[in-house]
Amino acid sequence: MTELLGLFAAILTTASFLPQAMLVVRTGKTDGISVMMYSMFTVGVTAWLVYGLMIGSLPVILANAVTLGLAATILSLKLKAIFAERTRASVALLN
Amino acid sequence: MTELLGLFAAILTTASFLPQAMLVVRTGKTDGISVMMYSMFTVGVTAWLVYGLMIGSLPVILANAVTLGLAATILSLKLKAIFAERTRASVALLN
Repeated sequence: MTELLGLFAAILTTASFLPQAMLVVRTGKTDGISVMMYSMFTVGVTAWLVYGLMIGSLPVILANAVTLGLAATILSLKLKAIFAERTRASVALLN
Repeated sequence: MTELLGLFAAILTTASFLPQAMLVVRTGKTDGISVMMYSMFTVGVTAWLVYGLMIGSLPVILANAVTLGLAATILSLKLKAIFAERTRASVALLN
């Protein structure tokens, strides 16, 4: 019963994060994404995942494993966009 | 040690949600907010809070109590905006 409630919670909060994540992954547009916030969020979700493993809570483990995969993908797309922008700016300066 | 890691996780994920929440609360602008997603998220966070109480996890309780307060505030502002819009549309039809 307790685990079922936890899984219900995990599905709802993970699902409510999915449309945002899918939009970024599909379009690759990361203008509205804050690097600082997403870095904090990604580290936080990793800590939740380890905490879930330590207390043996399946809902905490599942919810954060899925969210970590999505958050890490979004963060890497954002970092890629920042580096691409910097390279473009450097090339523009050289020309 | 386990609880400290959980509290660290709770602080990071809650803090990464704060700027978005404060922006909506301060400006009252809810155009970018999806009612469906926020309703799911609010119910999910409530379920996490009850789950945290059932397994006796202080980090899960604290993180979700704070997030529930913010999410419920944002959802109520969004619903208020929807009803205000409907009232305005009805008055426009009557005139």
